Amino acid sequence: MEFVKKDILDMESLSVEEIQAILDTAETLKEISTRSIKKVPTLRGKSIVHFFYEASTRTKTSFEIAAKRLSADTVSISASTSSIVKGETLADTAKNLEAMNPDVIVIRHHAAGAPHMLARLVKASVINAGDGMHAHPTQALLDMMTVREKRGRLEGLRVAIIGDIAHSRVARSNIVGFIKMGAKVVLAGPPTMIPMGIEALGAHVRHHIQEAIHDADVIMVLRIQKERQQAFVFPSEREYAQCYGLTVERLAEAKEDVLIMHPGPINRGVEIASEVADGPCSVILEQVANGVAIRMALFYLLLGGRR
Amino acid sequence: MEFVKKDILDMESLSVEEIQAILDTAETLKEISTRSIKKVPTLRGKSIVHFFYEASTRTKTSFEIAAKRLSADTVSISASTSSIVKGETLADTAKNLEAMNPDVIVIRHHAAGAPHMLARLVKASVINAGDGMHAHPTQALLDMMTVREKRGRLEGLRVAIIGDIAHSRVARSNIVGFIKMGAKVVLAGPPTMIPMGIEALGAHVRHHIQEAIHDADVIMVLRIQKERQQAFVFPSEREYAQCYGLTVERLAEAKEDVLIMHPGPINRGVEIASEVADGPCSVILEQVANGVAIRMALFYLLLGGRR
Amino acid sequence: MEFVKKDILDMESLSVEEIQAILDTAETLKEISTRSIKKVPTLRGKSIVHFFYEASTRTKTSFEIAAKRLSADTVSISASTSSIVKGETLADTAKNLEAMNPDVIVIRHHAAGAPHMLARLVKASVINAGDGMHAHPTQALLDMMTVREKRGRLEGLRVAIIGDIAHSRVARSNIVGFIKMGAKVVLAGPPTMIPMGIEALGAHVRHHIQEAIHDADVIMVLRIQKERQQAFVFPSEREYAQCYGLTVERLAEAKEDVLIMHPGPINRGVEIASEVADGPCSVILEQVANGVAIRMALFYLLLGGRR
Repeated sequence: MEFVKKDILDMESLSVEEIQAILDTAETLKEISTRSIKKVPTLRGKSIVHFFYEASTRTKTSFEIAAKRLSADTVSISASTSSIVKGETLADTAKNLEAMNPDVIVIRHHAAGAPHMLARLVKASVINAGDGMHAHPTQALLDMMTVREKRGRLEGLRVAIIGDIAHSRVARSNIVGFIKMGAKVVLAGPPTMIPMGIEALGAHVRHHIQEAIHDADVIMVLRIQKERQQAFVFPSEREYAQCYGLTVERLAEAKEDVLIMHPGPINRGVEIASEVADGPCSVILEQVANGVAIRMALFYLLLGGRR
Repeated sequence: MEFVKKDILDMESLSVEEIQAILDTAETLKEISTRSIKKVPTLRGKSIVHFFYEASTRTKTSFEIAAKRLSADTVSISASTSSIVKGETLADTAKNLEAMNPDVIVIRHHAAGAPHMLARLVKASVINAGDGMHAHPTQALLDMMTVREKRGRLEGLRVAIIGDIAHSRVARSNIVGFIKMGAKVVLAGPPTMIPMGIEALGAHVRHHIQEAIHDADVIMVLRIQKERQQAFVFPSEREYAQCYGLTVERLAEAKEDVLIMHPGPINRGVEIASEVADGPCSVILEQVANGVAIRMALFYLLLGGRR
Repeated sequence: MEFVKKDILDMESLSVEEIQAILDTAETLKEISTRSIKKVPTLRGKSIVHFFYEASTRTKTSFEIAAKRLSADTVSISASTSSIVKGETLADTAKNLEAMNPDVIVIRHHAAGAPHMLARLVKASVINAGDGMHAHPTQALLDMMTVREKRGRLEGLRVAIIGDIAHSRVARSNIVGFIKMGAKVVLAGPPTMIPMGIEALGAHVRHHIQEAIHDADVIMVLRIQKERQQAFVFPSEREYAQCYGLTVERLAEAKEDVLIMHPGPINRGVEIASEVADGPCSVILEQVANGVAIRMALFYLLLGGRR
C-alpha cells in the first residue's frame, strides 16, 4: 500500500487501512530505538520544524527524538521566543515557514483547527501535535499501538475512558480511533465533564466508574487539569479522587489482565493511585516508548516511505 | 575571487565585489533547498553558535536551517535562559564562547555595535543578525538578492523605502547597500520617523508617499512597531495607514511591475493592505526563501569556500 | 583500564583511577576541537538529553558542543517550557524520558540529590551538571584537568579556594577532587561563608585571604552571588572586594607563577579584579576550553569507549 496522505490532522480523516499502515510501520521502526546505534539514514536532508505554541516536554521530546533517529534535521520554534509575540497571524507565520522549504511542520496550538488551517496553507506535511480541546492524533495512534501490541488486535475490545472527556483532545481522538478500528468505547466521568451528544461519535456513557470498568479490556485514565478546578467544573481534587480516581479497590473490580493507560503527566492520588500507575497492569511507560515509534512512522510515511 | 572577510557586520564594510560574490553564491546555493535531500556535506564539523538576545522567529529559523543544510552543527543560546541574567558582560560571554572554538557566532542584540565589539574580541567569524537600530546586513543582502533575481540588476533601479526610517536597522542597511550597488533610494514617512541628515547616506527624502512610489521599481514597506505608538511618534495606527499605508489605491499610482517588499512580520491593514501584501507584485515570501540562501552563502564564504 | 561507571554524580564516587582515566581521555579528545573539521563519528546514533532546570549558558553550551563533536544526537529540555510546570514529579519525568531510550541524561537541578535520584530510576547514564549547593563534578574535573595540564601533576600542589564556600557546589566538588588526587586545599572567606566542620573533608580553613594564597600553586576564586547579599551573608560588594577580592596587590603576595581560576561568570571588581582575571596568571578561559574536552571524555567513557 502506498501512503498518500499529506497531513495527519485528526483520527476522523484517517482510514482503517491508513491506521493499520501507521501501526505496522511503527512496530517495524520501534526496534531502532533499542539498538546501540539508534539511527538510520532514511530521512537525511529532510527538514522538520517543531512549532509549539503550548509548553510540552514529552510530546516535543518524542517528536524530536523520532526525527533524529531517522536522521532528519530539526528546528524548534516556541511561541515565547518568536515573532508571534509581535502579533503576526498564524497564516503569515505559516507562509513564512513554508518559504524556507520545510518537509514537515509539527504544530501544537491552543486553538482548535489551527493545524488544519496551516495544512491548507502550506505544501509541507503538517502533523497535529495537539490543538485546543479538539484532537491529538499521535497520542491516539500510540495508544492504539500499545493496545494492539499487548492484545494482538483492536477489534472487539472494550475501552473505558475515565475523566474529563469534555476538555480532552486525547479522549476525542481515542474515541474516534478505537471505534473506527472496531473497539467499543465506554466513557465515565462527572456529568459536567461529559459533553452533551458525545454518543453521536458511537461511544457509550456511564456515570458510575464501576459500570465502565468492570468488563473493560483497557482503562484509559485522563489527566485532571488542576487549573480547571477553579472554574468549578469539579469541587475538589479529593472529591474527584473519591468518585472517579482509579484506586486499587476499584481496579479489583476490573478484569485481571486489564490494561491501564494514561497520557501523562500523571496527578498521583487524584485521577490515578500510585499503586495502579506503577502496578503490573500499567502500560503507561510503554505508551511513551511507542510514542517515539509512532512519530517515526508518521515522518517516514509522510515523506514518501513505502510499506 | 577569494572571499577574505572575517565578519559580516554591516553593509558599509562590504565592497561591491564582496556583495556580488555573496549574491552569486546565494543564487547557486538556493537550489539545494528545493531538492528532495536538502543537504550538502560542505560544512560538516563546523560549529555555529546562534546567540539571540532578542526574540525572533524567521531570522533565527532561517539561520538554523541554512546551517543545517550545509551540515554544520548548531547551538542556540537565548538571553532568557543564559547567564546573561547573572550580569556577565557581553565581552566575558564572548570570550567564554570563543574558548569553545565555534567557527561562526551569529548575534542579534538590542545594543547597536554589540556585534562589532564581539568581532574584535573573538577569532570566530561574527554575523550581525540585527543590532539595535543600527544594521541588519543579512536582511539587506536577501532584499538585494530578491531584486536582482527579479530585475537582473540593481544598478539604476529606484528603490522607495516607506515608513519608520529612523528606528529601522533594515532601512539603514538597505539604504547603504542599494546605493553602493548603484540604485537610487528614496525615503518617505512621517517627519518624526525620518532622521535628520539621512541624505548624507545618499538617499533622497520625500514627505508624501506618492512622490516616493510613483516611479519606483521597488517599494520596500517597513513594519510599524506598535510599541512605538505609545511614545507618540505617530498618532494612531489608523491615521498612519491613511497617510502612509500602502493601499491598493496608492499602488495604482506606481509602475505596473513594481516589486513590493516587506521584511516581516506584517501588520496587515496598517503599513500595508492585505491585497497588496498578497498581490501579484509582492515578493515578500521570496524574500524569506532567499534569506535561507543568503545565510547559506555567508556561512559558506566565511568558512573558506571559494567562488 | 575499562571504565565501568554508569553515572557521574559527584567527586566522592569517583576513584583516583577513574579521575585519571577521565583526565587522560579529555587530554586526548581536546585536540578534536582545534581541527578544521571538529567532529568524529564516535557516538553516532547515541541520544543525549540535556535537562536544565536552572538557567545556564556556558555549562549547557559546553555539553551540547561536546556531544555534537562526537556526533551524538541531542535534545534539550528546559524547565520553563516543559510539563514540569504542570506539576509532574521528577521521578515521573525521569521514567518518561527513560522510555524514549536516551543513552545519557545530563541534568542541572536546584535540588541537591536530584541527579542521584534520577540515576537510580533510569538505565541511561546520568551526568550531574550541578545540583543545588551539592556538587558540580564536571566543573571540578575541568579544573583539575587545567591544573594538571599547566603543572604536570596534582599531587602535592597547594590549592586555595576563596569566597563563598558554604553555598558553592563548585567548591565542594573541587575540595573532594583535589584532596583525593593528593593536593592540599586551603579555604578562605568571610566566616559566614565557611561551613562548620568543612575540615572533615580534609581542607584547611584560613580566615585571612593572605594566609591562604601566599604559598598557593592555584588560587580558585568563587563567584559572589549577588542575590545572596540581600540575605546579609555579606554586607556589601564593596566591602567584600576590600576583604576578599583578588586584587593586583593581593596577587603580588602570591607565588609568581600561581594559576588563577574562576568558574565564571565573573563579577569584575568584586571577587576578582579585571587586571587579575585578564592577567598572565589567569587560566580562566582555558578552563572553559577544557570543559568541552572533559564533557566529551565523559560521554565517550560512559558510552563504552575503552582507554
